[in-house]
Amino acid sequence: MIKIAILGYGNLGRGVEAAIKQNDDLVLTGVYTRRDPSGLKINTEGVAVRAASELENGRDDIDVLVICGGSATDLPEMTPYYARWYNVLDSFDTHANIPTHFANVDKAAKDGGKVGVISAGWDPGMFSVNRVYADAILPCGQAYTFWGKGVSQGHSDAVRRIDGVKDARQYTIPVDKALDAVRSGANPALTTREKHTREVFVVAEEGADRAAIENAIVTMPNYFSDYDTTAHFITEEEMKRDHSGLPHGGSVIHSGTTGEGNKHVIEYSLKLDSNPEFTGSVLAACARAAYRMNKEGVTGAKTILDIAPAYLSAKSGDELRAHYL
Amino acid sequence: MIKIAILGYGNLGRGVEAAIKQNDDLVLTGVYTRRDPSGLKINTEGVAVRAASELENGRDDIDVLVICGGSATDLPEMTPYYARWYNVLDSFDTHANIPTHFANVDKAAKDGGKVGVISAGWDPGMFSVNRVYADAILPCGQAYTFWGKGVSQGHSDAVRRIDGVKDARQYTIPVDKALDAVRSGANPALTTREKHTREVFVVAEEGADRAAIENAIVTMPNYFSDYDTTAHFITEEEMKRDHSGLPHGGSVIHSGTTGEGNKHVIEYSLKLDSNPEFTGSVLAACARAAYRMNKEGVTGAKTILDIAPAYLSAKSGDELRAHYL
Repeated sequence: MIKIAILGYGNLGRGVEAAIKQNDDLVLTGVYTRRDPSGLKINTEGVAVRAASELENGRDDIDVLVICGGSATDLPEMTPYYARWYNVLDSFDTHANIPTHFANVDKAAKDGGKVGVISAGWDPGMFSVNRVYADAILPCGQAYTFWGKGVSQGHSDAVRRIDGVKDARQYTIPVDKALDAVRSGANPALTTREKHTREVFVVAEEGADRAAIENAIVTMPNYFSDYDTTAHFITEEEMKRDHSGLPHGGSVIHSGTTGEGNKHVIEYSLKLDSNPEFTGSVLAACARAAYRMNKEGVTGAKTILDIAPAYLSAKSGDELRAHYL
Repeated sequence: MIKIAILGYGNLGRGVEAAIKQNDDLVLTGVYTRRDPSGLKINTEGVAVRAASELENGRDDIDVLVICGGSATDLPEMTPYYARWYNVLDSFDTHANIPTHFANVDKAAKDGGKVGVISAGWDPGMFSVNRVYADAILPCGQAYTFWGKGVSQGHSDAVRRIDGVKDARQYTIPVDKALDAVRSGANPALTTREKHTREVFVVAEEGADRAAIENAIVTMPNYFSDYDTTAHFITEEEMKRDHSGLPHGGSVIHSGTTGEGNKHVIEYSLKLDSNPEFTGSVLAACARAAYRMNKEGVTGAKTILDIAPAYLSAKSGDELRAHYL
């Protein structure tokens, strides 16, 4: 049994917890929090909730520590910090800062003789894996990544910060026409606006200026101004009834040519009812791989690109070759 | 530059040759044949065609030998035989015999201090990779593999052996209704007949009994009797004009649940204009991986399940993390 602990018990931490229950070779040995542990009720009976401070100096009931924090400020500090004592795993997803984060985790993990897997999940994660496979197989080609239909938490949060907004949910939606063009192998040049639209559901404060809110949304730089955005005002009850889930998904589509112009299209797509539970499931598989790699003497930072598929599976090499190859 | 030689110059050998030209870090250093090499004209200028016998005892102008033979009789002999001298690579695809083939190649490659990658391509190959990833991420789930629309060479050959048949081409076609049911996440139970149909184009000998040919096709055990099969009689000209390509493809679709019944669907699909050129492109990427793994001291048999995605790519780890992760 591989002993796994979770640090940070938000949506993602709960997703990892749910995934551990589905894997007979993984066991949850503790949930750690930076808040008051006595206030935290988790979904696994008999497992202790402890203060993050108890992780200091290493514990022998943890083979892999899954760090479920935010990419903006938590993970850049926490993942290298704990890599000195534990095999660690995170879902760091600020693409531009991945090289720096990798270097920091690499140094700490090597010093500690541990493995640190960063940026696991689906994007970065399984989408990255598919971008790399496709580019390696069809180097004369082009890859496109589409996201959605799904809830973007960052964009939802941005709308919530607008004056007069009580609650908001933002859906990212790929444009069918763009998807069709890419799937045809036409390798179209697509602008940001042509690839995705954005749809926002807003609960306004009573008496708020809806026109002003809508204008603040659709003109918001970085988040919405480069997209065609539709805003809908709904009631709190409608928000709760129709938009409480966190679905997501998307596609990586790569088309390329070989020989005398033969075209090939590779598509990897995900349709997810729960983004955090799927991400948690990827993390659980990566925790297994981190443990195994470290057992074999591997140390330092790794990403899912450095992990052979067989390492993620609970099944033996013999079983995989007999039934999955 | 990684020096690659090809043994066997049929459709697949030419596919590997075409792929090598698209990769700046790979170079073709020779094509080897068991026939008379003087009769063979290849598509790469300045590269020697030599007799297979010249491979004996090892040559220093070969880093990886890609063996393009048939799975029935060629590869079970050839891959272990040459693994004593070279890093070898094949596309062995008789699923039931993979464990035995793996064991034979493993022994030979370990004795020789080489790596032998077996069963590379798309199925087995990239489809296997996707079956394993999906099962590792969503263990409470079910995977379905669909093939086509595409030409099955084995089935085409089987029809060609029927009395009165001059030429034949068989297409395997996934059933839309089955695809839709699987994509919905319904995890349907599907019979062989419900998953695929088969369509055969036949050029009959003059005066042949078409009804008898049709009956021989649709009732043929193992190949056609478990499927709904349609046979069309066409002219030689039509065969040449409309059916000279070797397109193929298919999908691996895995749906599973997490938490309190959240559904997730993972789909990997391929649409290929040329089956042998795409397979050759996978082999070229695997040749790179075989070379690198052996350089790092790895020996023995491997499959694509044992290869980390980054090993297949010509790009550096830094580049992959910065631009593909």
